[in-house]
Amino acid sequence: MTLKKTDNAPLTRRSFLERFGMVGGSALVMSAMHSWDLLGAQAGPRPQLSGRPKNARVIILGAGISGMTAGYELSKLGYDVKILEARDRVGGVNWSVRRGATHTELGPNGETQVCTFDEGMYVNAGPWRIPHWHEGVLGYCKELGVPLEMFVNEAEASYFYYEGDNIGPLANRRVRLREVKADMIGYTCELMAKCVSQDRLDMPLTADDKEKFVDFLVNEGYLDAADHAYRQNTGRGPGDPHDFKALLQSGFGLRIRSVMSGTGQAPMFQPIGGIDNFPKGFQRALGDRIQLRMEVQSVRQSESDVKVTVRNLTTGQVQTLVADYCVSCLPLTVLGTLDVNLSTETMAAVKATQYSPSAKMGLQMKRRFWEEDDRIFGGHLYSNLPFGEFSYPSNGYFGQKGVLLGFYGNGRMQNVVEMPVKDRVEHVLKHASKVHPQIRTEFESAYSVFWEKVQYSLGAFSGGGGRASANGNDRLSVIGRPDGRIYLGCAAVSGDGSWMEGAVGAAWKQVKALHQRAMAS
Amino acid sequence: MTLKKTDNAPLTRRSFLERFGMVGGSALVMSAMHSWDLLGAQAGPRPQLSGRPKNARVIILGAGISGMTAGYELSKLGYDVKILEARDRVGGVNWSVRRGATHTELGPNGETQVCTFDEGMYVNAGPWRIPHWHEGVLGYCKELGVPLEMFVNEAEASYFYYEGDNIGPLANRRVRLREVKADMIGYTCELMAKCVSQDRLDMPLTADDKEKFVDFLVNEGYLDAADHAYRQNTGRGPGDPHDFKALLQSGFGLRIRSVMSGTGQAPMFQPIGGIDNFPKGFQRALGDRIQLRMEVQSVRQSESDVKVTVRNLTTGQVQTLVADYCVSCLPLTVLGTLDVNLSTETMAAVKATQYSPSAKMGLQMKRRFWEEDDRIFGGHLYSNLPFGEFSYPSNGYFGQKGVLLGFYGNGRMQNVVEMPVKDRVEHVLKHASKVHPQIRTEFESAYSVFWEKVQYSLGAFSGGGGRASANGNDRLSVIGRPDGRIYLGCAAVSGDGSWMEGAVGAAWKQVKALHQRAMAS
Repeated sequence: MTLKKTDNAPLTRRSFLERFGMVGGSALVMSAMHSWDLLGAQAGPRPQLSGRPKNARVIILGAGISGMTAGYELSKLGYDVKILEARDRVGGVNWSVRRGATHTELGPNGETQVCTFDEGMYVNAGPWRIPHWHEGVLGYCKELGVPLEMFVNEAEASYFYYEGDNIGPLANRRVRLREVKADMIGYTCELMAKCVSQDRLDMPLTADDKEKFVDFLVNEGYLDAADHAYRQNTGRGPGDPHDFKALLQSGFGLRIRSVMSGTGQAPMFQPIGGIDNFPKGFQRALGDRIQLRMEVQSVRQSESDVKVTVRNLTTGQVQTLVADYCVSCLPLTVLGTLDVNLSTETMAAVKATQYSPSAKMGLQMKRRFWEEDDRIFGGHLYSNLPFGEFSYPSNGYFGQKGVLLGFYGNGRMQNVVEMPVKDRVEHVLKHASKVHPQIRTEFESAYSVFWEKVQYSLGAFSGGGGRASANGNDRLSVIGRPDGRIYLGCAAVSGDGSWMEGAVGAAWKQVKALHQRAMAS
Repeated sequence: MTLKKTDNAPLTRRSFLERFGMVGGSALVMSAMHSWDLLGAQAGPRPQLSGRPKNARVIILGAGISGMTAGYELSKLGYDVKILEARDRVGGVNWSVRRGATHTELGPNGETQVCTFDEGMYVNAGPWRIPHWHEGVLGYCKELGVPLEMFVNEAEASYFYYEGDNIGPLANRRVRLREVKADMIGYTCELMAKCVSQDRLDMPLTADDKEKFVDFLVNEGYLDAADHAYRQNTGRGPGDPHDFKALLQSGFGLRIRSVMSGTGQAPMFQPIGGIDNFPKGFQRALGDRIQLRMEVQSVRQSESDVKVTVRNLTTGQVQTLVADYCVSCLPLTVLGTLDVNLSTETMAAVKATQYSPSAKMGLQMKRRFWEEDDRIFGGHLYSNLPFGEFSYPSNGYFGQKGVLLGFYGNGRMQNVVEMPVKDRVEHVLKHASKVHPQIRTEFESAYSVFWEKVQYSLGAFSGGGGRASANGNDRLSVIGRPDGRIYLGCAAVSGDGSWMEGAVGAAWKQVKALHQRAMAS
């Protein structure tokens, strides 16, 4: 046993991702990367700042998580803060779609949807789960009084369902996660126990060590105590174990680990009642510092101040606000389209930042058939079907109705983003009914959010495709430093825009920089 | 690989239980048996009964889970049902202790406790978790509108902490469950990968099989992709892996399995706001069929009826009620002390049924230090300290205060049951502070329920010590059959009185038998 620090099996994971990327499209790779993210964005400790600035007026663009984090911290320090938000709600991509929610997609054929879910039903169309490592977000939830419940990111009862020629005998079949775990580890323990008994180990073990090791293997792998064979057991549930070679060929075993890694490790959390209760907590604290329905027209900085011209979408009135500093927490996709006198270098880095075309669709079901018929409570379907991640709600257990997340992945897969809304729904129902035939009769209504077609977002999160770019570090350092009196505070600045924790970390970084400068001046 | 059906490693588990039974007292064995229960009581499908009886009056003794289940089902069938309950609340041992709760212990030095927890804080002093297999209980929760949330029965962040000479180098240290999982399986995968690479397996594998198997082992065990060594990784968390031989000696690995078994397999559930919301759901449905504060004095059956004499504890009035049948859902410990004209054989079987001296103590903490300082959210401490199961709440995450379950096990261990209440608290604080030194300063108040000293219960649940008795089946068949016009419907009759599902199953059994008889007569 060697104990030197090392990276964590990158080749195998990558080859797994590539393998299923070929089978299932890029969304599966993306979704696997989410679950397995090795490090996860952690914003680190909240900056401990002190001192009150003199006459420091700050205009923050965008009342998403980063904008409200920046506004909250700057307000506490005594800044005169205004947060301008074009939408009629806070949160940005943090959006829980409920009855009556509506948006019109951009583009020549952009459809308008109005959510017809029952009262109390919702789908989190943007972020949805908070790793317990994300102390920035969780700390604010605690401070702002946002109650949290467990988000189930792994459920033993979940099905695998893979189509394809290279999957082998287990293709087009429902196989439970608990069966894969018990069988793969059971077979491994059986083979290991034989090696130990027959002294074929490459390691010196005393007779006592060997006995204890075999005890462990027998218990861990549900082996027969007498002959150390792996057979039926109460861990995997009813039925005979799957064939070992068929399991190897399926690749299902590559979804399991001794213990989940990093951000995917249980527990994860979600605000009770919808993820938007997190931004609503900030909104309660910030009060009228946030102005809704204020659309930024231009930002002009000079050596002495920043002028922000905004249009009030309710009255149509246009006005110009003046501040000492501006923190833009708009998505870079949106900032890149605005009339802002950033330096050429900053604007180039802004425009070079890629955003994910990630999309989500919630489907309300008359009956929670996955619970009643399949005893599945939360967690995901593991499949290569063309809808990315398909997930069961981690709330409302044993209620009557529920909202399934039927699509979470790259909206462009199989060109779903270009389909009429009803065809997108049919796409999900068609493929999901291979696993859950009940879904057609239980379906009531759907709502889909394809973020690249959503005004004021123009994409789901930064990092999709852009994180690994050769000049990523240069780009990050450019967007992370102040451009005159303008700071960029959106999640992309943290280097991991795919988590709310990245938004918090980006805001902290810029609040700290701005405060140091304001106090020094 | 053999695929014949077999029992599930009984010898190893038993030897594990015995081993730690010696170290930690019988409570640890009991608690381990709970977590690992291989089959779990399942009540089976709810009986589908039809037909309306003529003039059938039924008196049910006790408004615990079994009494209310029987009353609910009999009411639906048209029976004239009265449920008599001595306490001023329903639920029996299903009791959520909240501010103002009180009871006086039996015995010459019986103390009176009054719960001083803050509003909203509680401890479930009896049952507390519902396996997702327990469709009887869960079906009623759904039908009665009792909202449920996840109960965390296993948390990766949980500590092991074992004292003792035979534990080895890891004695008296906090070791995380995730470290044990990652290290034990990681070492196993490393050894296995070497055997595969060096063709030392007792199984024919193709080159492709071998490659896929090694891919699995590398990913499952966090092995280095190049040299297949197990080292630091993001699954176990910070720090170097523990020494393999030290882990073997500690026995920690015997707490983990490829996937949890039977009743312990995630998910488990709890009613939101306290386990007593389940009996309260029945109470809403049953209304004034339940009479509280009615203490049974005697039960006299004849060929034609059953007369139950009860004392109204509020008015002192004694009255005799007449019915066609009586279903006693009192604990057998209580029934055995009553003046009831059961046959000698039945009464002998009632008295021969052993009940567990299980006890629980909740301790309110000013601060959820296990969350803030240790990042533990629900789950249990794995220790051999003399307080049995020590658990962290699966609710109120990130709130300010919380109630720890500081003691759950055999109340007689180290004679804790005979200590004054304040000394019991000191006992828990003394031992728990080895793992959580903050517990002394954060402690606010405690409430302890030692069920064998509680009036109307006289024990926690049947089966503790009695399940494995040689004549267990005879005893079960005796208490399960009608004795004249009297049926025994408490959980003990199901053969597993340690789960609420057993109470439901017992009630169903007797409702079915009673209804068949009433319809036939």
